[in-house]
Amino acid sequence: MKGAVLHAPKDIRFEQCDDPKIIQPTDAILRLAATCVCGSDLWPYRGMQPIDGPTHMGHEYCGIVEEVGSAVKNINPGQFVVGSFATSDNTCPHCQYGYQSSCVHREFMMRAQAPFLRVPNADGTLVLTPGGTPSPDLVPSLLAASDVLGTGWFAADAANVKPGGTVVVVGDGAVGLLGVLSAKQMGAGRIIAMSRHEKRQKLAREFGATEIVTERGDEGVDRIKEMTKGIGADSVLECVGTQESMMQAIHATRPGGYVSYVGVPHGVELDGQKLFFTHVHLHGGPAPVRRFLPKLIDLILNKTIDPGKVFDLTLPLDQVAEGYRAMDERRAIKTLLQV
Amino acid sequence: MKGAVLHAPKDIRFEQCDDPKIIQPTDAILRLAATCVCGSDLWPYRGMQPIDGPTHMGHEYCGIVEEVGSAVKNINPGQFVVGSFATSDNTCPHCQYGYQSSCVHREFMMRAQAPFLRVPNADGTLVLTPGGTPSPDLVPSLLAASDVLGTGWFAADAANVKPGGTVVVVGDGAVGLLGVLSAKQMGAGRIIAMSRHEKRQKLAREFGATEIVTERGDEGVDRIKEMTKGIGADSVLECVGTQESMMQAIHATRPGGYVSYVGVPHGVELDGQKLFFTHVHLHGGPAPVRRFLPKLIDLILNKTIDPGKVFDLTLPLDQVAEGYRAMDERRAIKTLLQV
Repeated sequence: MKGAVLHAPKDIRFEQCDDPKIIQPTDAILRLAATCVCGSDLWPYRGMQPIDGPTHMGHEYCGIVEEVGSAVKNINPGQFVVGSFATSDNTCPHCQYGYQSSCVHREFMMRAQAPFLRVPNADGTLVLTPGGTPSPDLVPSLLAASDVLGTGWFAADAANVKPGGTVVVVGDGAVGLLGVLSAKQMGAGRIIAMSRHEKRQKLAREFGATEIVTERGDEGVDRIKEMTKGIGADSVLECVGTQESMMQAIHATRPGGYVSYVGVPHGVELDGQKLFFTHVHLHGGPAPVRRFLPKLIDLILNKTIDPGKVFDLTLPLDQVAEGYRAMDERRAIKTLLQV
Repeated sequence: MKGAVLHAPKDIRFEQCDDPKIIQPTDAILRLAATCVCGSDLWPYRGMQPIDGPTHMGHEYCGIVEEVGSAVKNINPGQFVVGSFATSDNTCPHCQYGYQSSCVHREFMMRAQAPFLRVPNADGTLVLTPGGTPSPDLVPSLLAASDVLGTGWFAADAANVKPGGTVVVVGDGAVGLLGVLSAKQMGAGRIIAMSRHEKRQKLAREFGATEIVTERGDEGVDRIKEMTKGIGADSVLECVGTQESMMQAIHATRPGGYVSYVGVPHGVELDGQKLFFTHVHLHGGPAPVRRFLPKLIDLILNKTIDPGKVFDLTLPLDQVAEGYRAMDERRAIKTLLQV
């Protein structure tokens, strides 16, 4: 088969790869219904995260089970499943506490920008769609569930979004936009999206944002303070991962409020004493998407939510390079790749 | 009157000061029943926190109201009250959310190592002891409530201590020891105190510690992991404020667990990416003691708890210098000063 391989910054190629095979008896092989490009793929693509030689890319996926290892019990060939970027046995203590993305058997997925994919820990990672194979129009949303939606949902959950609360979302990428959608589902009273990009502002409003703030950094913080009578927000979702976005999130939060951070921080340093006096709660990490998948799949299948709207560019998989370029240049929010 | 003034590292003097006077109509003047030396007083005493000229010391207090300003409504001369190291109006939004130590009118107390004390925001800061002036044997515990107990309680609260949970306390100072007591009150199943000091270990056990760990740093973390089947603790109370203690606390916590930090961090830097992958919740700041005071006073008056045991040295106020020395040299856990 052919798949996407990053050779150097800005050099992503669609090239011949080995077909995936069952290695462990707990593995499954999927034939993907679709795959996509993640905001986090842009870190190595932009050369801001070093790679160690040619690197297979992609960690978002859903599709039909092609083959299972001898120890797999819960899923069978022919079934439609959704997974997550982090595999989990779903039985270890961390999994039982709902932190499957810190499972003792965790593996971070790669190689999903390809037609076929090996998924380790298949029983604990893959979730069946009730009612069999879903209709094709639902595939983009189910694909979103495997990372960006699950991550946006975790951002809202970790920021303690409550009915009636005031929520700020820092970052207008797909995760931030789906953080807006998640906060809306959790009953937030006000959802303030920080974005200076017209198309993304529009989608934020569709997903439930009640207000838009275009200022950034200290000016953005001042604007949030002004809009909240000087108090700050109850819940702030940091969906970028830079020093500026982190500080913007922390300082936009009221004392005793909650900051979540769900994008891998790059170059972020927190001064302990300054953080202390902000009085915020801080929680984040790789989203335990597996915890939320059954609920998210239900919300998608019953058409309560339509997170697939974040895909504003659809390309055949062999045009993966253009998919990256469009996101890098912010021409696209998120690229879906047809396999 | 005479009070304690720090002139330079290790140079604390008991010397002539102005008698406090009502400055704002919301002030009260107290005649203190007792005062004491705080672990945080040792930062400037040891020269690890710069002072800007001679500095009046002390922020823990309880006693009899001597005089009130014209706007004070809730308290009257002759009443016994307990305050906190941070004053608060107890009405602003931050106060209403339970973060009185971030009150918009907050002032950090000083000058409490003296016989008389001016307390700003008297109505929102001072809490009456029900039933009038308490018997003298309860004064040490009520004094402890004004900071170390309130701070230890916040540490347990912020670390989400729950019935049956596994709790680790990093730091065997008075705050750490009262963190143990607080975790016990909240129903923790296991309370592991990290201490290599025999007298403090003994008091930790009296307060409810079920196990003692003498190792520190990475070795301490390994020991906690070993004791929790490799999982880590549910709740870790960081009661020191150094880089080593903070890292020890974070790494002793399970993914999804809770770390609180309640001592002002000195030289602490958190690497955003490393923190991200630990998956912990982090919350701390100056303890909102006012939130807890009514409950703590009740627990003391009905003799459920005896936090006054942390005072293992009692001196007359004019020997304040020896009180600091004994704590600096770890001969005393905490010094009570009789006024």
